Amino acid sequence: MIITLTLNPALDETWTVDRLVPGATHRVATGASRAGGKGINVARVLHSTGHDVLAVAPVGGASGGGFTAELQASGVPCILVPVATDTRRSVCTVDASTGEATVLNEAGLALRTPDVDAVEDAVLDLLPADVVTISGSLPPDYAPARLGRLVGTLKRLGARVVVDTSGPAMLVAAQAGADLIKPNREELLAATGAADLESGIRVLLDAGAGIVVASDGAAGMILARGTERWRARLEQPVSGNPTGAGDAAVASLTAHLAAKDTASADLGAMATRAVAWSASAVTMPLAGDLAPDHDAWSARVLLTSDSLEPS
Amino acid sequence: MIITLTLNPALDETWTVDRLVPGATHRVATGASRAGGKGINVARVLHSTGHDVLAVAPVGGASGGGFTAELQASGVPCILVPVATDTRRSVCTVDASTGEATVLNEAGLALRTPDVDAVEDAVLDLLPADVVTISGSLPPDYAPARLGRLVGTLKRLGARVVVDTSGPAMLVAAQAGADLIKPNREELLAATGAADLESGIRVLLDAGAGIVVASDGAAGMILARGTERWRARLEQPVSGNPTGAGDAAVASLTAHLAAKDTASADLGAMATRAVAWSASAVTMPLAGDLAPDHDAWSARVLLTSDSLEPS
Repeated sequence: MIITLTLNPALDETWTVDRLVPGATHRVATGASRAGGKGINVARVLHSTGHDVLAVAPVGGASGGGFTAELQASGVPCILVPVATDTRRSVCTVDASTGEATVLNEAGLALRTPDVDAVEDAVLDLLPADVVTISGSLPPDYAPARLGRLVGTLKRLGARVVVDTSGPAMLVAAQAGADLIKPNREELLAATGAADLESGIRVLLDAGAGIVVASDGAAGMILARGTERWRARLEQPVSGNPTGAGDAAVASLTAHLAAKDTASADLGAMATRAVAWSASAVTMPLAGDLAPDHDAWSARVLLTSDSLEPS
Repeated sequence: MIITLTLNPALDETWTVDRLVPGATHRVATGASRAGGKGINVARVLHSTGHDVLAVAPVGGASGGGFTAELQASGVPCILVPVATDTRRSVCTVDASTGEATVLNEAGLALRTPDVDAVEDAVLDLLPADVVTISGSLPPDYAPARLGRLVGTLKRLGARVVVDTSGPAMLVAAQAGADLIKPNREELLAATGAADLESGIRVLLDAGAGIVVASDGAAGMILARGTERWRARLEQPVSGNPTGAGDAAVASLTAHLAAKDTASADLGAMATRAVAWSASAVTMPLAGDLAPDHDAWSARVLLTSDSLEPS
């Protein structure tokens, strides 16, 4: 079983206007609401590809009610933990004339400590699991050290742990021995202070991460373990909605780690499929959705590997 | 007692961004939610000025939950009728650098007929009342003729009826003998097909309205009854947020009609105070709020009257 944990989920709300004019009043049709957050997207992809997955997240307030209703209607298995803090919202206005999306992302409000405890306990109560994937931003006031302790506890209880977050918590997760860490270029350079991808990857591996997957937009991904390096990219870039592409990659990587341990995982196969699913997600309008031909994209992935001298 | 009926209320949600950039993603603080709709604003003004008022509105869905929570917390007495249709929303993004507001107004979804019946019955169950004020847009599929029948029933049951809506329903309300109809210039010309304010006013009076109050922005208001005409405007225009200014005027006019009948109402006093409260509302950031010195604005109102030849 795979568990995805989303500590700072959001209710994603979208309205479409004929043309967005700042300062004007627009008449619009009723907006659409969808349960969002990176771990929710990962769970949607895993569920739609037939994997045994459970999404865990805190929910609160009226926005949490909308979040719960949509996620349950979507059929994604989930354990939603009631908390005192309103679920944050992400408000998107799509200009139908340009396709351009203007987004307001609420930072969210801090969870009370007993509520954070309850969310983490919900995950621990579900163990044993093959993989626990922790995705997305952390709530305000959630200390990076707390994420490190959670990763450590999950590993001691026998789960492999995948982490896709940003900031200091990324380094702390590596130090706690996360099996796989997946930053994009900006997140990796910001969290490690490194000047280039390869140096940043090195920092996370040296800190204790098992595998590092660094994504770099159209330039593809680098997968690294020890001195092993795999580079995968599309033959031709694909255009569409990049939101959720990283989550599709994480879903693919997580599915691989559910069947193999970190040392024996096939990095070449992981790299190819992560790029393929990511490309497939770009072609879909909603984050968390894959095109039916997602595996066919593997044929369009260029894969190379090399080995570094040990540092 | 005064009852305000809001058939198509909205949950007004506001987010503030440092600078709104179309096509960009913005990090924002948690938004603010407020029960909105013209009749709710009228009730807020009447409640804050010490009048005995009850706001009646349909509420549904998660947005209806937020609407109910905010209105009850605000202390405005209300009867909120649960319906199957989600309460529509109005999404406002305020650019802190310019103060400019970009608004998305949902048109709303149709109410089911038994739900419309239940809302109207909630008003009838509250009678007797001095005045029933019906404000704002009508839900999709709500036939103008239905508003006419409601106005007729309310009058037969002894209430004076104030109507502030737009479109064909305005004429139907006049034909049903509404005591006071309050369009703005654009609404009046659109509903009557008249070329100027005075002709439009004549159409509504001839149709059967007791008093017509036509507002014309900084040019002030015309109050008309039979051949009587009162014109009131501010000595100097006031700058601020015009949203809710018309509702403050309606609240003032409604309060006057709660104490006097339509034939004996003092149109000069009504005109002066309607302009004063309207100006006071413009100085407040939120619709439905008056400044504490709202009556002092009367000293800055210019009032004139004349009498027309009967048409």
